[in-house]
Amino acid sequence: MSDACTIHMIRTAARRIAGHARRTPLLSSPFLDDLAGRRILVKPECLQHTGSFKFRGAFNALAAMDDATRARGVIAFSSGNHAQGVAYAAKLHDTSAVIIMPSDAPQLKIDNTRALGADVILYDRDTEDRDAIGARLSTDRNLTLIKPFDDPNVIAGQGTTGLEIAEDANALGIENADVLVCCGGGGLTSGIALALAADAPTLRARPVEPAGFDDVARSLATGAIQRNNATSGNICDAIITPQPGDLTWPILHRLCGPGLSVTEDQCLSAMAQAFLRLKLVAEPGGAAALAAALHSDDIETDTVIVTISGGNVDPAMFARALDTLR
Amino acid sequence: MSDACTIHMIRTAARRIAGHARRTPLLSSPFLDDLAGRRILVKPECLQHTGSFKFRGAFNALAAMDDATRARGVIAFSSGNHAQGVAYAAKLHDTSAVIIMPSDAPQLKIDNTRALGADVILYDRDTEDRDAIGARLSTDRNLTLIKPFDDPNVIAGQGTTGLEIAEDANALGIENADVLVCCGGGGLTSGIALALAADAPTLRARPVEPAGFDDVARSLATGAIQRNNATSGNICDAIITPQPGDLTWPILHRLCGPGLSVTEDQCLSAMAQAFLRLKLVAEPGGAAALAAALHSDDIETDTVIVTISGGNVDPAMFARALDTLR
Repeated sequence: MSDACTIHMIRTAARRIAGHARRTPLLSSPFLDDLAGRRILVKPECLQHTGSFKFRGAFNALAAMDDATRARGVIAFSSGNHAQGVAYAAKLHDTSAVIIMPSDAPQLKIDNTRALGADVILYDRDTEDRDAIGARLSTDRNLTLIKPFDDPNVIAGQGTTGLEIAEDANALGIENADVLVCCGGGGLTSGIALALAADAPTLRARPVEPAGFDDVARSLATGAIQRNNATSGNICDAIITPQPGDLTWPILHRLCGPGLSVTEDQCLSAMAQAFLRLKLVAEPGGAAALAAALHSDDIETDTVIVTISGGNVDPAMFARALDTLR
Repeated sequence: MSDACTIHMIRTAARRIAGHARRTPLLSSPFLDDLAGRRILVKPECLQHTGSFKFRGAFNALAAMDDATRARGVIAFSSGNHAQGVAYAAKLHDTSAVIIMPSDAPQLKIDNTRALGADVILYDRDTEDRDAIGARLSTDRNLTLIKPFDDPNVIAGQGTTGLEIAEDANALGIENADVLVCCGGGGLTSGIALALAADAPTLRARPVEPAGFDDVARSLATGAIQRNNATSGNICDAIITPQPGDLTWPILHRLCGPGLSVTEDQCLSAMAQAFLRLKLVAEPGGAAALAAALHSDDIETDTVIVTISGGNVDPAMFARALDTLR
């Protein structure tokens, strides 16, 4: 199947992003270990360029294109981390990026994406058809769409996170651990699962989602794709999608352990602990895996490895997280 | 001179702390570069164990002791980052630490230091003599004092930060850059200066202090040790000391470029930028060097390397920094 992501593609992605993406470490704190009653190791992708793991997949997708395709430019639909990842990856590849965003997206995210060199095109959610605008632009300018997760090269780029986790876990002699991954469409989770299966097969990837938006967990439990009833109304908006991706789902189904879900309050509390104990800024959805490690009753391994997938959070939301410490 | 720190001692310290202290990277953001009008590379020692560079010096001081001395335990005077660094380093060396703190120190810092395994002894600033308590304990229990900066092994431990900066700067081909260091008693600054002189001699260490508490800058300008008029009343309390140390001053005098000073508002603004652009938590004094990089008119190099020396900040103070973004 030509559109499946393979471990070979992830290793190729690792070579492509070397020297461009940050090689993030595994961090820890004795305070977090005490709180959780188990050893917690944190993979801080909030420290990645543009503040989230999305840069890895975007960079790899651009690097994988032939020169002529890449030179014509790329296009993406996103108001969030994928937008910034694609914008910056395009800039580093000396090509152009068009990002289609809803006109009611936060001004800071619009400004950031523009400042990273992208051509941001705003549309009215109520009166305009996003896909039609994208299709017209793609045709007129011959741009290549970079999807947020259902693209083998994007999955491969995110999977480099898993190669690094495997390498560090092996160096630490960790043989039995759940690897908790903040999960939206499943690009990061499936990429990490593939990498672990190859390089640290006794480690198990498990998706973490917001309670009430746990389409992946329910899909895994039932063995068939389940949809979310809603896709908004939760502070973890960055990791909420309608359903698992067509390309990510078979990988998730084959390789992942049971999903976990966390409440908004647990995510805010995890953001506060990341502030206090790791000196890291996590966004609500980016703190979901840490929240599960700290609060879930459904983890049995003595060591748990958690991703902090992003740190792009508004000051007001971060202040809400700090308030949980008072 | 037996009490001077040498590059040889720093290299020995690097071998001792390897695998125990974190090897922190150099981070960057195109947004910070735009803001400053020059390239900024950040050495995030807030990500170090216990949230500051102090762990390096404390660990090295403990590792340098003979077994019998170390087994009897250590003692330190500190209400801040040095306390946590010594406590955790002692714990990792399976020995005991007594930390003498003023009874009005923030409860969180007392709790943290105790949680890291130290025996915290509180004294009343108004009625008790800290040094007398320390002397009695040292004699009774035969404890070894670890000073916060005026100890060659502490300076050597902090200097490992400079070896890492030199290694990374050399790998990036950086030949001309000021290295701005948040400076209190000068342990970190003198250690980094020694390391740069050996491994990256075209890079220049420069101390950064709070305006009005710039004893090191004035000492450098006059060529003789100057004192601060006050040692409290500034949010950068972690980097305020009465005067340069007896051991650090000759090194600072010999190797450092002119000092820089920053206002409290500039430090709060730098904390906000570290939050927004690097996803890092910096404490006010730990953000002083970044503040100088963003705001000083007295920097001429196209590239500047800055330490973020610590991230141990109360939520209320961090909220003040976030308010500068509104």
